[in-house]
Amino acid sequence: MSSFDKLTHHFQSISNLQHAYSMLSWDNASVMPSGGAEARSNAIAELSTLIHQKMTSPALEELFSEVEANDTINSASVREMKRQWSQATVLPEDLVRAKSIAGTKCEHAWRTQRGDNDWAGFEKNWAEVVKLSQEEAQIRAQAKNTSPYDAMLDLYEPGTTSESLELVFNDVKSWLPLLIDQVIEKQAFELVTLPQGHYPREKQKALGLDVMKLLQFDFEHGRLDESVHPFCGGVPSDVRITTRYDESEFIQSLMGIVHETGHARYEQGLPKSLAGLPAGEARSMGIHESQSLFFEMQIGRSNPFIAHLARLAEQHFGSSNSQQFSQDNFQKLYTRVKKDFIRVDADELTYPAHVILRYEIERDLINGKIKYTDVPELWNQKMQQYMGLSTEGNFKNGCMQDIHWTDGAFGYFPSYTLGAMYAAQFMAAMRKNIDVDSVIVSGDLTPIFSWLSDNIWSKGSLLTTDELVKQATGETLNPAHFKDHLRNRYL
Amino acid sequence: MSSFDKLTHHFQSISNLQHAYSMLSWDNASVMPSGGAEARSNAIAELSTLIHQKMTSPALEELFSEVEANDTINSASVREMKRQWSQATVLPEDLVRAKSIAGTKCEHAWRTQRGDNDWAGFEKNWAEVVKLSQEEAQIRAQAKNTSPYDAMLDLYEPGTTSESLELVFNDVKSWLPLLIDQVIEKQAFELVTLPQGHYPREKQKALGLDVMKLLQFDFEHGRLDESVHPFCGGVPSDVRITTRYDESEFIQSLMGIVHETGHARYEQGLPKSLAGLPAGEARSMGIHESQSLFFEMQIGRSNPFIAHLARLAEQHFGSSNSQQFSQDNFQKLYTRVKKDFIRVDADELTYPAHVILRYEIERDLINGKIKYTDVPELWNQKMQQYMGLSTEGNFKNGCMQDIHWTDGAFGYFPSYTLGAMYAAQFMAAMRKNIDVDSVIVSGDLTPIFSWLSDNIWSKGSLLTTDELVKQATGETLNPAHFKDHLRNRYL
Repeated sequence: MSSFDKLTHHFQSISNLQHAYSMLSWDNASVMPSGGAEARSNAIAELSTLIHQKMTSPALEELFSEVEANDTINSASVREMKRQWSQATVLPEDLVRAKSIAGTKCEHAWRTQRGDNDWAGFEKNWAEVVKLSQEEAQIRAQAKNTSPYDAMLDLYEPGTTSESLELVFNDVKSWLPLLIDQVIEKQAFELVTLPQGHYPREKQKALGLDVMKLLQFDFEHGRLDESVHPFCGGVPSDVRITTRYDESEFIQSLMGIVHETGHARYEQGLPKSLAGLPAGEARSMGIHESQSLFFEMQIGRSNPFIAHLARLAEQHFGSSNSQQFSQDNFQKLYTRVKKDFIRVDADELTYPAHVILRYEIERDLINGKIKYTDVPELWNQKMQQYMGLSTEGNFKNGCMQDIHWTDGAFGYFPSYTLGAMYAAQFMAAMRKNIDVDSVIVSGDLTPIFSWLSDNIWSKGSLLTTDELVKQATGETLNPAHFKDHLRNRYL
Repeated sequence: MSSFDKLTHHFQSISNLQHAYSMLSWDNASVMPSGGAEARSNAIAELSTLIHQKMTSPALEELFSEVEANDTINSASVREMKRQWSQATVLPEDLVRAKSIAGTKCEHAWRTQRGDNDWAGFEKNWAEVVKLSQEEAQIRAQAKNTSPYDAMLDLYEPGTTSESLELVFNDVKSWLPLLIDQVIEKQAFELVTLPQGHYPREKQKALGLDVMKLLQFDFEHGRLDESVHPFCGGVPSDVRITTRYDESEFIQSLMGIVHETGHARYEQGLPKSLAGLPAGEARSMGIHESQSLFFEMQIGRSNPFIAHLARLAEQHFGSSNSQQFSQDNFQKLYTRVKKDFIRVDADELTYPAHVILRYEIERDLINGKIKYTDVPELWNQKMQQYMGLSTEGNFKNGCMQDIHWTDGAFGYFPSYTLGAMYAAQFMAAMRKNIDVDSVIVSGDLTPIFSWLSDNIWSKGSLLTTDELVKQATGETLNPAHFKDHLRNRYL
């Protein structure tokens, strides 16, 4: 067996364990009865340890040094294996374990502390998470010769740096606040009605499945289930998306399904020839989010798609008050802009402000320029500046609202807005060759998905993000497309 | 860490991987979309290999030789660890792999060959399965100084031998054929109506859940789902039972749920202090089956329980023809005796004949007294002798009907009838202290379950089967209780 074949075999074996890990995690969140939790967390911990052991196996270093990659596929394959391996091996095991314990403890306590607005309690646990995350970032930074925060960013967005991020985020900051104000003024006197009534789970599910069919979700290779926090999990050949139903309101859950279907189709469309190998995985968190946001924002909130949603909703729920189910009302509902506190509930237009605020704080925190005790006040200042809202003393709707920082996932937030920008750029490129609106009106969205498949999904991680975006759109990330998209939709 | 603690730690780590294996198998059979099969089978194979490697780890031999078991729990714990370890280590890895490949191939082809009545095709694959199973049995026999078949039997029924089996089976053979004929004659002119109509899945599921509640299934530690072949899987803290629904008929699925609930409550009732350790597992296949059959035959088909079933069925389905839902009709339906070809559809009375026939054939096959080519004719002879039915040329309803032999699970069949006998014996012992019928009539079956918990479930594998049965009932296996039970119910 050649060194390359040995590497392939080794990573496929890791992928088999990750399969088990993913499926147990899905089960955990969607169907497991509460009494199964303890044994499940032992099983998941066992799998994590085995995956980490295999990922840091001493045999790999020699194999990497031996391997001669001769063709394009192989060299990308080796590059991506090496990336995962070096990310795993660079950290001392003690630090990995300490961060995992501190993160689990902090996150667990946060689940009640947030509701209690208990910053003082949270801070006690969080101090350790921040300290260990800073240590992690410094070790990674030394190995990669970057700033600590850039080393964390690289975990989620390989190739992206603070420098490149600031170029695009500063651009956004130069026009977004004014745009938000203009749109809010424009929408001030719009009449919009949230359909309220009783919408049984089973009917909402049937509606969701119809929308997934329209979006060509492959039901031979995936399922729709329920969980408290919607997510996309599983493995590429068996993608598990979830939603949650509120029987008094279906609008949010429905668009949530569109979003998760975007994640799912990316996974389902990854190259089968590289199944189980790092080069066959999704390119980055930002590219993953670009697909969910392409589905949610570029397709899902477009006029012709909203017409489909309104028609399907009326089919499933009928209505004595059909005005609520009109395309015009759905349109207004799905494009309503409001300055508010909570990121996960934010509209398309204010969302980037939430992300940029988090980015600026976590960057300075990980680079050691601010202390964790400074975070609430900085949050308040930036919320006032970007949104005109005060979070003074309001920790639960301020810096304690997200799960990401509780277990030290610093560097993740920028992916959301990068995803929104990539999605807009992909749509702009697609429109050069495809009459997207007519395709959506027709109800057969195949040309759209073929473009995504050819340009994004089938590429896995064979290309770098810059190469991928340039091959698909003719240029690397250009935030002008995002700006154009927002102005066209909202002004 | 003491040697005993090291052993404990090692086996708990195996148990964590078995947790993943069990849950992936449940998922496979109940919710996985078809396109997920290939990646799933890779993941399951990876886990099997890891489990086998850990179970045969060279470190164990030394730990076993070092360990000094000082108290009762520990010595049982070590005994059971050693049993699993020696069963796994005695076979050369090549044989394990060869049998697994031959078994998978034979079973897979059988799935279509059976329907085609294709003995010639089946025989080609099965020859290899039989040959490798004989090799396995011989190696195990040498290690245990028994006959080859007894060594296989020991995998499922530790402590049981052909000699002890024949004592009880010969007893059954001396009275069963006459009893069957008497009962069939008695039932010849009974009027019985199978409720036929449309029974929607959702309603059948609600009925099943009500019956599970009556049987005190712990829904904090388990679920009911659907699969093509009903089974009980998962882990003790999260037991997954399945059923299948036929919307034109609910009688079979309903009793299937009672049966699987018996398996489930045994698992849920295993000692929590020994979770993840061999001594905390179910005692044997026969004892496992004794619990499902206690639920199905001893409780489930008793007059007072059938009254509950009839009442609940009427509640869920109503009926214009309430005669179909009468206790009397349900009673007759659930105790109908018929000589027929298929074991899995057999009634309580003819079932042992199906098992004894298989036992006699597989014993001689594994001991090398007959050849695999002799099986169809022997099957035909014994079916004529025990049931008065010919299976000449009818392979699909004869020797090709069961899955067990296709992948070499020789030695398993006796567990079914041992289970039925143990169940009758447990009931006879229970009746000495508990007025079982009144308890069932009351609808609160707690005293019955407390007896089972105290005497069976909470013992795990701390005792040998003989010790367990003797402590619970005052004697080791005595088939007279089974005979009495059948005569009381059917004559």
